[in-house]
Order: sequence, then structure tokens, then C-alpha cells
Amino acid sequence: MIGKIHKQMSHDSWLFSKMATPEYTPFVFLLLLFQSSVWGFPSCHATKPGMLNVHLVPHTHDDVGWLKTVDQYFYGDRNDIQHAGVQYILDSVVDQLLKNPDRRFIYVETAFFYRWWKQQTDDMQNTVKQLVNEGRLEFVNGGWCMSDEATTHYSAVIDQMTMGLRFLNDTFGHCGRPRVAWHIDPFGHAREHASMFAQMGYDGFFFGRLDYQDRNRRMVAREQEMLWRASESLTPPMADLFTGILPNGYNPPEGFCWDQSCDDPPIRDDPDLEDYNVDDVVTRFLHIALVYKTNHIIMTMGSDFQYENANLWYKNLDKLIRYVNQMQSNGSEVNVLYSTPSCYLQELHRANLTWPLKGDDFFPYADSAHDFWTGYFTSRPALKRYERISNSYLQTCKQLEVLGGPISRKGPFGAGDSETLKKAMAVAQHHDAVSGTEKQHVANDYARKLANGWAHCQVLVSNTLSSLSGSSAPRVYCEHLNISVCPLTETSKKFSVNVYNPLARPVSWPVRLPVNGTAYRISDAKGKAVDSQVGLSVLIMVVICRCSITFVMTFLRVTFDPETGLLSSLSNLETQQTVKLSQNFYWYNASDGNNSESIQMSGAYIFRPNTSTPFIISKTAKIETLQNSVVQEVRQWFSPWVSQVVRLYTDSRALELEWTVGPVPIGDDLGKEVISRLDSSINSSGVFYTDSNGREMLQRRKDYRPTWNLRQSEPIAGNYYPINSRAYIKDDKDQLTVVTDRSQGGGSIQDGSLEIMLHRRLLYDDVRGVGEPLNEMSDIYPEGLVVRGRHLLSLSPPATAADTHRPLAQEVYQAGGEREPIFSGLQAVLPPAVHLLTVSQWDQDTVLLRLEHQYQASESKEHSQPVTVNLQKLFSTLDVLGVSEMNLSANQWKDEMTRLDWKAESGTHHTGVTNQLSAYSAL
Amino acid sequence: MIGKIHKQMSHDSWLFSKMATPEYTPFVFLLLLFQSSVWGFPSCHATKPGMLNVHLVPHTHDDVGWLKTVDQYFYGDRNDIQHAGVQYILDSVVDQLLKNPDRRFIYVETAFFYRWWKQQTDDMQNTVKQLVNEGRLEFVNGGWCMSDEATTHYSAVIDQMTMGLRFLNDTFGHCGRPRVAWHIDPFGHAREHASMFAQMGYDGFFFGRLDYQDRNRRMVAREQEMLWRASESLTPPMADLFTGILPNGYNPPEGFCWDQSCDDPPIRDDPDLEDYNVDDVVTRFLHIALVYKTNHIIMTMGSDFQYENANLWYKNLDKLIRYVNQMQSNGSEVNVLYSTPSCYLQELHRANLTWPLKGDDFFPYADSAHDFWTGYFTSRPALKRYERISNSYLQTCKQLEVLGGPISRKGPFGAGDSETLKKAMAVAQHHDAVSGTEKQHVANDYARKLANGWAHCQVLVSNTLSSLSGSSAPRVYCEHLNISVCPLTETSKKFSVNVYNPLARPVSWPVRLPVNGTAYRISDAKGKAVDSQVGLSVLIMVVICRCSITFVMTFLRVTFDPETGLLSSLSNLETQQTVKLSQNFYWYNASDGNNSESIQMSGAYIFRPNTSTPFIISKTAKIETLQNSVVQEVRQWFSPWVSQVVRLYTDSRALELEWTVGPVPIGDDLGKEVISRLDSSINSSGVFYTDSNGREMLQRRKDYRPTWNLRQSEPIAGNYYPINSRAYIKDDKDQLTVVTDRSQGGGSIQDGSLEIMLHRRLLYDDVRGVGEPLNEMSDIYPEGLVVRGRHLLSLSPPATAADTHRPLAQEVYQAGGEREPIFSGLQAVLPPAVHLLTVSQWDQDTVLLRLEHQYQASESKEHSQPVTVNLQKLFSTLDVLGVSEMNLSANQWKDEMTRLDWKAESGTHHTGVTNQLSAYSAL
Repeated sequence: MIGKIHKQMSHDSWLFSKMATPEYTPFVFLLLLFQSSVWGFPSCHATKPGMLNVHLVPHTHDDVGWLKTVDQYFYGDRNDIQHAGVQYILDSVVDQLLKNPDRRFIYVETAFFYRWWKQQTDDMQNTVKQLVNEGRLEFVNGGWCMSDEATTHYSAVIDQMTMGLRFLNDTFGHCGRPRVAWHIDPFGHAREHASMFAQMGYDGFFFGRLDYQDRNRRMVAREQEMLWRASESLTPPMADLFTGILPNGYNPPEGFCWDQSCDDPPIRDDPDLEDYNVDDVVTRFLHIALVYKTNHIIMTMGSDFQYENANLWYKNLDKLIRYVNQMQSNGSEVNVLYSTPSCYLQELHRANLTWPLKGDDFFPYADSAHDFWTGYFTSRPALKRYERISNSYLQTCKQLEVLGGPISRKGPFGAGDSETLKKAMAVAQHHDAVSGTEKQHVANDYARKLANGWAHCQVLVSNTLSSLSGSSAPRVYCEHLNISVCPLTETSKKFSVNVYNPLARPVSWPVRLPVNGTAYRISDAKGKAVDSQVGLSVLIMVVICRCSITFVMTFLRVTFDPETGLLSSLSNLETQQTVKLSQNFYWYNASDGNNSESIQMSGAYIFRPNTSTPFIISKTAKIETLQNSVVQEVRQWFSPWVSQVVRLYTDSRALELEWTVGPVPIGDDLGKEVISRLDSSINSSGVFYTDSNGREMLQRRKDYRPTWNLRQSEPIAGNYYPINSRAYIKDDKDQLTVVTDRSQGGGSIQDGSLEIMLHRRLLYDDVRGVGEPLNEMSDIYPEGLVVRGRHLLSLSPPATAADTHRPLAQEVYQAGGEREPIFSGLQAVLPPAVHLLTVSQWDQDTVLLRLEHQYQASESKEHSQPVTVNLQKLFSTLDVLGVSEMNLSANQWKDEMTRLDWKAESGTHHTGVTNQLSAYSAL
Repeated sequence: MIGKIHKQMSHDSWLFSKMATPEYTPFVFLLLLFQSSVWGFPSCHATKPGMLNVHLVPHTHDDVGWLKTVDQYFYGDRNDIQHAGVQYILDSVVDQLLKNPDRRFIYVETAFFYRWWKQQTDDMQNTVKQLVNEGRLEFVNGGWCMSDEATTHYSAVIDQMTMGLRFLNDTFGHCGRPRVAWHIDPFGHAREHASMFAQMGYDGFFFGRLDYQDRNRRMVAREQEMLWRASESLTPPMADLFTGILPNGYNPPEGFCWDQSCDDPPIRDDPDLEDYNVDDVVTRFLHIALVYKTNHIIMTMGSDFQYENANLWYKNLDKLIRYVNQMQSNGSEVNVLYSTPSCYLQELHRANLTWPLKGDDFFPYADSAHDFWTGYFTSRPALKRYERISNSYLQTCKQLEVLGGPISRKGPFGAGDSETLKKAMAVAQHHDAVSGTEKQHVANDYARKLANGWAHCQVLVSNTLSSLSGSSAPRVYCEHLNISVCPLTETSKKFSVNVYNPLARPVSWPVRLPVNGTAYRISDAKGKAVDSQVGLSVLIMVVICRCSITFVMTFLRVTFDPETGLLSSLSNLETQQTVKLSQNFYWYNASDGNNSESIQMSGAYIFRPNTSTPFIISKTAKIETLQNSVVQEVRQWFSPWVSQVVRLYTDSRALELEWTVGPVPIGDDLGKEVISRLDSSINSSGVFYTDSNGREMLQRRKDYRPTWNLRQSEPIAGNYYPINSRAYIKDDKDQLTVVTDRSQGGGSIQDGSLEIMLHRRLLYDDVRGVGEPLNEMSDIYPEGLVVRGRHLLSLSPPATAADTHRPLAQEVYQAGGEREPIFSGLQAVLPPAVHLLTVSQWDQDTVLLRLEHQYQASESKEHSQPVTVNLQKLFSTLDVLGVSEMNLSANQWKDEMTRLDWKAESGTHHTGVTNQLSAYSAL
């Protein structure tokens, strides 16, 4: 069945070898749809060399869900919550662009554009194509959404960008390919995002939000434009990205907002009417402060959901341009023009200057002394986890779509697809989705969309498994394993389980199923017995005592303090290293704004504890232990709303801490931000490390920023960073790494200590727009949300730590496993350094494959090395006819990528690049 | 000079004679611009005879000033006060009409349309002409504004309608002539307005507001459409007007508002997105209750300042029409179509039904039991007066423009014009202008606009007077005579005074000037001495005593009660009749909403006294008297904030009560509504009479409405009616008439009593949108506004009362006079029954002349008779080449007026027509 869609290879077998210095290596088979011509910059208006050229960039910022759901935003439904209707924005902008060929507009969020496009007539579609071809309508960024940068995983970001950019490519060809990345709203900026954008072929990147101290310094130093060297592993300029900070967030200058949502005075240029104000407007415009390096300046003329009635903007902008430029005849040296980010970028490039280098990232983001946006690293922990496992399931779904072929989409179980989950996942990457900063009803909608995507994928998966196994027996999906519920396994005396491993190598992974029987026999597909244990029913011992507890398995030893029931040490038996290690739960009292210094409250975005010392939930834990041949567990109860199971599996190199937190009590009217804190004997010297979007690691130093002289004003929140997949502390000897199962915030406030925020329940809105306190409740959890998750701890010498945490994090991220596959899609196992990032059906005869080297430079003696992959022999059921390499987002042939070259200042002294590189070279 | 612009008559002299049965007789000389073809109804969409046809009428209601000034509304300035920008509305509507030829729109307020039009390119103007010619854009009403009906004078209303309709005629020809009058917002409806609309050629009239009890009855009886017989003097159907009440005010049905200002759900018809709601919308639409007589119903799809982004409306209306009409294939009998009021009217006419007759008016308006909109009859008394004297000055200005010819507009004093004051006056007729229901800053703007108009007219008047008198000596205008200030007369030893009489007959009128000398000699232009007295300096006696005071002049005798200082009797010496008459000042305590029955407060719109008994300001008055050969005065002081001068002039048939009220004290936190109340011995039997827009009189009966069985819920406010120029009470023998100098509200709560509200100072907003308490203060009056005005009292037998009050009211209205003209523009004096309503330059060689018969049928034995006017001999300096009679608004030749004929129900039993006619026939 499978082979039928794949043609026989018609040429000699070949070997593709790729020197994988640690970098992404996306391969695409026979991507036929792409136009291959390389396009230049769109038609930009001429600028005036001797003058200050002000580039007016009309734009709208359309959140793919926030206060309203994405579809409510599209249609303009629930305008009582927020006035916003994207369908009308696009209607109106196109109309207005047609009225004056000088006008320009940029559009960003393909999730919306796609919805709009498919409702248009052929005539309108042709009109829009014409506008795009003429550079009057320009796509920037162009992903499905503008992803969050703190809480997203690079895998899902690449997917969502690919989906948006593919639509633009399919629809508009090369004129629709964005040249500029545009993250004007996300609340801090990840280096890995910049690296991805560079590898996606973007020529430049603009954003709006950065730490207020950083901005002030950069304004003075004229360093609001820079060259971001976004990877220490990739050879420059592969991950170099020209980056510009927009002058006013992404808003127009004060007094010049002419959207229907603004109240600024329109230009009244009829002398017969009252209040003629042209002179006033021109004078005010000419006095806007300008702090940039070239004789070009960009002005973002738009904001959230603006241009629903674009006439208001354009009518006044037309007048502004006319009247300001008229002043040139009186000696004014200001020239105003309609422009786009890429036209502006082109002028900056033409200026042929050198730009300061930037090597670290833009976390954490603070917009004022007590306003650190570090709460959303953890906000909505259940949604953050659901997003992660949904991505895992999507990768499985896409792989099985490739393996199953057409029958996967229409088979014995009906019509299935991966598109629904792809779109749901793409939408979930939005910077008010997985970030947890949306309203509750919108969070529910994201989850609902994901669940709907799962349902579509489940049909697809059933069809493929049926095809591969030859059995069309009905399949039941155990979707509630997080709460230990699966009706089938709990009621059946006999059942079979399919477990799918989407990784390109075998992994060992415990599978836990709820059952009601007392003894089970478990065998694999060939009838061979599998090691297993049934839970409480075969509990070997329950201990509530003050006796010493020590777990020992193959790789690790763990001890607990008999006085407190807490962890007391961790040892790696292979490397013979031991650290003192305790772990407990605490909560910060969220500020309610009644603080003498400022009124900022903790909320969905902002973490602001009232005091720097967290409250301990319990100094001791009641414990029970369970030990058998598969697993050793200590079950800890700290309070009615905090418990934990500490697990050590036979063959695992990681200690699992499965925490359960909630409902967080608020009867005392105190908002609470709950952390798990590890305290160790490691001499971490004020330094710890966090990943960037699940990929490269960044060094974090307490009360310090690599690029400016920090005045620390929030000792806890100002030291929190996003943890997408892992964090570690280390000294010369020991590295303690925590792998998380979702994005969380965390910090190292004391040496040897690493704290990770698990759950937040707040009573106030933090006045950043969402307008709700983050106080998650539901019908299922009327008393407040209960969250469960896992931290996986490993202890290693720093030099080999990556060998453990890299595969471990991929396993957690892909969350699944199998022992001996009944069927393998891969003919050969990939080398350990190579991760099978994407296998996805592109079109009928084409598959998109992404392979990545998953070790960064110098982090592993064994694995941070080039590797060779034989693509021809990789797949068991697919005949590979050919391969073409593309950029990371698969919207350009790799050999046609011609990015602008930018020159870095020599001897840039405060970029953090040198620090970071030396920090890594010390590994 | 003057004669130069007028050609010599080239044909034999002629006599134009007109049988002036009391009716308007407008004549226009050589109106060359008008297209003479008679046009039919615009292209209307076909309806379906067997179905219920729902006429969707997209419209916007654009107040010519209210919360913002007219120019702020036009440009969309001060959107912080109210989001509204008319320039964008017209931009957007035209765009959207072009997108789908099925779409329709109506536009109403020419003040705005004119501003927009002159900013458009030729291309756009041609596009709009095309839309108008095709009936896709239809003008309705079409005056400069939608005038208030309670507080306007017919003269100013005719002027403002003429100005708007002329612009439409000049611009669009016959396709721009509105067929429908459209007063969707005014707060009650005057019969005189309906009469004017009929005489202006309108085929029908629609409005939105009427008493809630009246509406309820009409809904049940299906009498929301009727034939309004709007005059008892004019022969039907001359003042018959088909009148329809709109189903939902002027708003769309609940749930179907798709403007950007609304939050109703848009039609979501993409089944791929969430919340597909087409079925729901269609179902809800089909269940809207319908209570009309034909199988046609009108739905106003729009509201205040809507359609700024017309796409939202039209996109959803297109879908509504498509999906609702699709249901016809499933048996639905509802047919929805884009329509206009004239298309709807055409269908009603085609239905060929008979309609109930209506003979009274729609005052007062109550939207609930305690919510009578009778406060605005008096609100902003100073603005109301300024509007009146501005109109008087405008008539003078226009006459002198005609008499002066081109030199009036460009002469020794510079460039002058009447246009500025014309436009200011036109704008002031708006239903939130002279009504007093606008915000304070907007009221200030109306006054500023009028003052600016005066300045332009003063140059014109100076030029003309210079030309006519041969003296170009500088002229000073005494604009502050209301506060007895005129620096020139107060400081000059010798000065000459020009006084202009715009009436077409000589009048005797006292001229009062402030001076500082003790003795003056006054002579007319020929040097003959004029009777005069200098004010306080020649005070004959000051009396503060308990002695009897009696004034006697030629026509009247007045006595005062020596105990109280109040009026005690009035006698007409010619007719030998005497009535007991006292007069005093009172205030109602304005409701602050803390009333058990309802929370309605008194405010700019609404009059709601807390109790039915007003508080007396003082039972006695301190008095001074002054007597000389010209005038006899009693000066009464009631309190520090209420005083009055009672004056009797030698030759006057009216007693003048010049009241001064203010600052109304509010230190007691009580809002106050101040009245002057006359209590007489007249046996008025619960009936009194008020004028309609200064013209015909209407009978008012206490706690009674002619057309329905009133349940009275506000004994005072529910018996208040607008008094534009006069009110009277009478019995068989005596009629006491009060002529006012501005619009005021009043009632007759007790027999023999007549009260008129003078001033209002309130502490609360009445929640009808204006959002401010009516609490007038200014830099000049920081303690609160002081208002001065006059009531002129006459006593006559009922049968001859009109012979006094008709000319008296015209004199007050035109406020001026002269003894022996130095120059007369009229060669012959007009007959007493004929009022020279309009003399105005139309274009270079054409003058607009309106003559009216100023007596209504049967009110005067002597004057309610046909009269003949010889137009040829009327003017002293103009050669009349020809004359063409037009409709009242001068936008159609009279002989081409072909209004739709409507059939009245025979035996309509509760229209009030019979009552009214019989009431009048009893005169």
C-alpha cells in the first residue's frame, strides 16, 4: 500500500553526505511548487540623500488570539470585549492601497491572511497579487502567527513559520517571501529565534520591546540597530541577523495616531472650516526626537488591530507627507515617505556602516523598575504542557501520514488529517497563546482547537496503524493519562497497546497505564515478556518512618533525609560523583500593588513577589515509598495541595520528580506563585544556564546583563529567565541539569540553588491589557486548577552533561517510546547527534525532512562533531528520488539564499558575545 | 449704483395678483439654474407582491453639532468626546456603494455634505453624481440640518431648508431633490413643520420619536402611518403630509447592528471557522415583530454617525439579504431588499390604502411615564434669544444686500457677506443647537459662529448704508444693548443713529440707548425733533411705598397692588375691558433622581419637577417707578437674582415685562427651573393656546391629548408645550396673549393661569446623551448665567386679538424699527395681512422674495381675508423683469409640483382634526 505513491528510483543510487557542524540541515524532496527566481527588494520610494528620510510604515498588529479567540478577531465578533475585526482590516487596506499607488502596507500574520484570502473572489485575489508584485502590499514575518519567544520550542516555531511562509509562497511566489522578521510585540527576545530567522533567509529583524535600561543606553549610544550573532555554534554570518529596535514600540509618535481607535486630531486643512491645524501638525512632526544612526528613521504608523478603516490613516498620512514635504521649499531638510521595513532596511544597508554586535538575548524584559515580564514564563502551566504534548503528537501524526500514505487520510476509520492539528499548533505558538497571557476563554479555545486537532490526527493514526499492522480493530486513545484515567485499560482483562516513537533512534521509556487488576502479563508484539509492575496493588512497602531511604538503580543513587522526608543527595554511579541535594516547594506572595515603591501587581505577564523570601509550604514531607524491579518511588505529601512522586527507573540516567500542585489556596487573599527549589552543594558562583527555545544554552549571571550595567530593582523577578526545556548549575566538577516537560520560569538566587516556578494563582490583573487576574478554575477544577508535571534531574561532569541532557530533553519533548517496534519507518538508526526534526508530507510526491545536529559546539567531546547521514538508506518504505536542500523554513532553495551582508563593528566592547563564547569555550 | 445690476423691463408693465387665502406665497424672480424636468422616483429594487418585503435603509444620523461642534464632527476631531467623523462616513459610503450596485444609502444633512463635496476631486464628484442619478445615493430631507421642531421659528427653518435644498439642486439637478422629509431624531414634532414640508413638495415624512403611549396605541391599531393635515388654513391637500413612524426609532432591530460602533455578532458564514451563525441570524431576523399595515416594512439600518466604515454594514447586509432570501426556496415568505425611504414610500402609495388623519401635533414627547422632554423648550435661554436676534439681523442683512447691490459685498468698509450668517443661522436650527441640548462648548461654538456671521453682515450693512446715505463715516454697532452697554453713545456728545426696519410696513418701536449726559436733543434725518427721554438721569420719581400705582397710556391701563408691588389688573382702554391680573416668579425644584417612582432627573432635555407646586421667590416686590411722556415703568426687585421692569409705552397696545433672572443660586444643591406666572380672572376652562413654530396656533387642553386617552403621570411637565412666539388664554370675553422674545416652554396648570419657564439651572445630567448638567456659567458670569428677556402682554376680545398679536409678534421677532426712513427699499407699504418674509439675493440678477399671509383662517375678521399685492410697484430701486412662483423651499417651480396623492380614512375618529377645527371655528 505504502509504496504505491512513490516512484521507483530511476537513477543510480547516491549518497548524500552533509558535514553537520552543529547546525540545522533541512532537506526537502522535490519541492516543485517554488518559483526559483531570486527576487530583489520591492519597489521602494526614492529617498533624498541630503535629508532626514522618515519612513512611514503603515501596519496593523493582529494578535492571533488574546482577549478574543482567533476566529472572533477575524470576524470582528465580540467587539464588546475588544473592537477588532481582521476581515475588515484587509478589506479596507486593499481598498485604500488602490486609491493611491504611493501608499504602502505590510501584513504579518498569515493565520488571518489565509482566512481572508480564501473568502475572496478571483478578481480580488488578482488585485491583491498585483499589489504584492508591485511592492505596495508587503508581507513581513509571514509565519502563521508572531510566535512567543520565551515559552515556545524551536520545533513548533519552525513548523508555524513554515506553514505561513508556504502559504505565501504558494500564493504569491517570490514576491510574497518576507525579507524582514517582525516581532514587534513579544515580551523579550530569544537568541534562538534570531538564529532561526537568519537560517530562514531573513535579511533583518525588527522588534519593539526591550528592557527600559537597555533601551535608554542604546538610545544614548545610538545602538538601537545592531548585528545579532545569534549562535555560538554556527559559522558567521549563518546566524547573524541585522536587528533594529523600533522607535516607539510599534506605535506611531504621540499625537499622530489616525486610526479609528485613536483620538488624535485629524489634519484639518480646509481653511474655510474651524481649527485649521496644518501648521501645528507639521511643526509637531518636525520636532519628534530622532536618535538613530543614519539619515533614515522608521515610524510605525499603526498598532493593535488598526486599519479596520484604513481611510482614516491614509487620508491623514497623505496630507502629512504633502504638507511636511512642502516645507522643503522653505528649507526644511525632512523628507517623509511611505515605506516598508524592507525598504527601510535597504536604506540602512546602503548606508554601508558598521553595526555593534550582540551575542546574548533580550531576557528578561522589564518596562519599568518593578515590572519584570517574567511571570508568563510559567503562566497557565497546564496549557503550556498541553501545547508540548500536542506537538509531540503532531510529529507522530505527520510521520504516520508519510508512512501511511493516502490511506492515512482516508482509511477504515474515516477521514483524518494532520492539517487541523498543524493549524492548532501554529496558532498556539502566538505570543498570547502558549505564553499564557490570554483571557481564560481564549485559553480554553486554544485547548479546544488542539483537542480537535488530536481528534483529526487520531483518525489518521488509526488508519495508518491499521494499514501497517493489517488489523482494523478499533483503537482507543488514552488521553487522560495525566490524571491516571483510561477506561479501557481500567476495565479490560486483556488489551494491546500501541506506542509510537517519533525519534529516529530507539529509546527506553516507561509506559504507565491505570489498571484495576492485581496481576498482568505483558508481552511485546512477538509474545516476549516485558518487564512491568502494577502500581499500588503490588506495592512492596509503605513507609512512614524516620528511617533512612536510599534508592539505587543502574545509574543513580538517591538518598532522602529521614527527618524531613526530603531529598538529601544525588549520586552518579558511573562517574562516581555525589552532590548534596535537597528539594522543596515554596510560594512567593504575589504583590497586590499595595507596595510603597510602585503599584505593580503580579499578573499573567508580570512576576512581582512582595518579598524576596518565599514561604515554605512544609519543612517536612509525609512519605510513602514503593520499590520494585522497574521503579523505585518516594511519594511525598507537603500539604493538601502539594505532593510529589520521586521516581527512579531501572535504566534511567535521570531522577524523575513528578510534582502535583493545586488547587492553590487563596482563602487568605494572597496570590501565590509556587516554586520547586533545588539546593545543592554545587559552587555555582552566581551563574546558571538556561536553554533558548529548547536548543542552545545561554549563561545567566545573577544581577547582571552582558550588554549593560544593570541597576537591579527586583532581586527575584529580575533574575528569572525562561526555561524551555532545561536549566543547569555547575562548578568545575558537577553539573546538575533539570529537564522540564514544558516552559517554565526559573532562576538561581543563591549559589548552588535552582528554582523553577510551577504554578501561579493570582488575584489581580497586572494592567498590561489582558484585564483578568490569572486565576485558573474550571468545571473540573472549581476549587482551582491542579497541575502535574515532571522535572528530570541528572548529575554529570560538565564536560559530558550534554550527552545525557540532549537525548533526555528530546525524549521528554517527544514524550513516548517503544521497546521493539512492530514496524519501523526508518531503515537505519540516525547517529546520536542527529535529531529527526521533521518528517512531513509536503505534497503528493514530496516529503519535507528536517534533520538537525542536536549538540551545540564544544558541549560534548563525543557528539559535538560533524556527522554524516546516508539519506538514501534512511527510510524503509520510501524510495528517495532526489533531494533538494532548502532554507530552514522551506520557502527558498538553499543555494538561492542571498542575504544582505552586514558589517560588525570591530572591538564591540559590551555585546556579551565575547563573554558568552569564552564561557562556552571553558566547557 | 443699485440699478446697475437690474436690467430694464423689456415688456409691458404687469400686475401680479395673488389670492392670498392665508397661505405662504413665495415668488422667485428668474431662477435660471433650476432644471425644469419633473423627475420620478429613483430606480427602486423590485419587491415581491406575495411576500412581506423588508426595506433595509442604510443611513447615518449626523448631528450638526451636539457633543462636538459641527466642524469637529466633520473632521472626526475630538474623538475622545464621541467617535464621529463625517468626512470618513461619506468617503466610505461612496466606496462601498461602488462595490455593489444593489446597495443603497441615504444622506440627510447638507451642512456636512457640502463640506465634504467641496473637498472632492472632479472625478469623485462625477462618480457621486452618477450614484445620485442612479438612485443608489439618495438625499432625504436635504436641509442644511435636521431642524429642531419645538424651539425654531418657521422663518429660520425655511431659510435653512432652502439653503440645503438649493445646494442639492445646484449640484445634482432634479435627481438631488429629496422626496421625503426625515426627522428621525427631533424630540417631538410640530404641525407647522409638517405644513412646511408639504408646501416644500415632500411626498412623505418619517420620524422616530413620539410619546410612548401614543406609539403603543398606534402599534396596536396599526396607525403608525397616517395622513397629517397640518394646517387649518390651507385647503387640503396643500398641507397634507403622509407621515410614517419608524419601527425602532431610527436604529436597526436589536442584534442586527453591524456598524463599527456596535457589538452585535457579524454574520459568520465560513463553515471552516468557529461559530458559523448563518442559521441563527436568519432565524432571528425572521422573528422580528412586524406591526405595519401593508406587506412592506422599513428597517433603518444605521444610527448616529454610523457608516464611518461602511464595509462592516454592507458586508453583513449583503449576507443577510442573500441568506434570508435563500430561505424563500424553503417556503419563507419574507423578501429583503436594499431600499430608501422614497422607494418604501412608493410601495405604500402603490398599496392604495386609506390612512388615518392626524390634525394636532406630537408635543409634548415622553419616552416614559416620568420622562417628558419639555425642559429643552427653555434650555439655554440666552442662546435661544441670540438665535432670534441673529435671524432678525440676517433678514436685515439680506435685504440690504439686495438694496445695496454688489457694493454691499465689496465697498468702502471692505468685504462683507450674508453667507456667513446664513450658514451660522442654518446650523443653529439643528435639533441640538437652538434646542439647548448640546454640550456647553458646542453652545459656545454656535454663538461664536453667529457672532462671526454678524461681523460679516456688519461690513455688508455698512457698505450698503454708506452707499444709500452717501456718507462713508465709520459706523459702530451697539451689540451689547442687552446689558445697556454702547461705548459710543455713552461717551459721545453728538452721534447719529441708523435704525433699520426689515418689515414691509412702518412700525412704532422704542429705541433705548445707554447715555451719560443729562439732556439730549433728538431729531430725525430731516432735523425734526423726536420724542425721547433720558433714562435714570431724568427719573421723575422713585417710589418705594405702599401707595397705589396705576399706569395709563393711550391704549392700556395697568394697576399694581400697593401691598405686594405686583401687577393687579390690566385694562384695554379701546375695548373697555379689564381683567384681574397678577404676575410673579417661582421655581420648580428639579428632580435629582432620588424619587421613589423613577430615577429620572431634570436635565437639558427633560423637565421633571420634584413637586407640582413651585416655590415662590418672593411674595412681594420692592419697586421703583419712572414716568415720562414716552414710557411708564415699574421696576420690581424680587430677590438678588430676580428683577423685572414693567413698561408701558405711549403708543403701545402691549405691556412689556422685562424680566432679569440669574445667577440662579444653587448653594442649596437644588436645581431650579424658574417660571414667570400670570394669574388672571379669565375663565380658561383648562384650555390654552400656543403657536406652532411662530405661525399657526394650536389648542392645548390640560391632561389631555386629542389622539389618545392620556394617562397623565407628570402633572406639570406633562402639560408643558413649546411657545415659539406667543401663548394665550381666553374665555368668551377676554383673551390675554403673551408674546415672547424667544422660544420658551409653558403651560396653564390652573384656570386663568399661564406660566412660562424663563431659565433653568440644573445639577444633573438627564441621561439622554449630552452628558452634562445644564449649568450655564462663563467667564463673564462665573456665578451663573444671568438672562434678560421680555414678555409682551395684550388684552383683547378673542375675535380681534390676532389683530394685535400678529403684528406685535412680527415686531418682536424682527426686533427693530424706525420712524421715518431715510431710505425705503419698498415703494409701497404692504397690506397689513402680508408679511415680507424673505428678500434675498439669489444670484446676480435674481432675487428671492417670499410674501406670506400672516393671519390664519378665521382668526381676524378684518385680516383673515384674501389680499392682493402688486409686485411690480413694490420695490423702489429694483426693476422687476419677471416673476416665477416656486415651492416654499424654492427648489421647484410651483407649477411642476406633483406630489403623491394620499387618501384619508373617512370618519377617522380620534385624530384631533375635528376638535381642532371646531375649536377654531368657535373663534
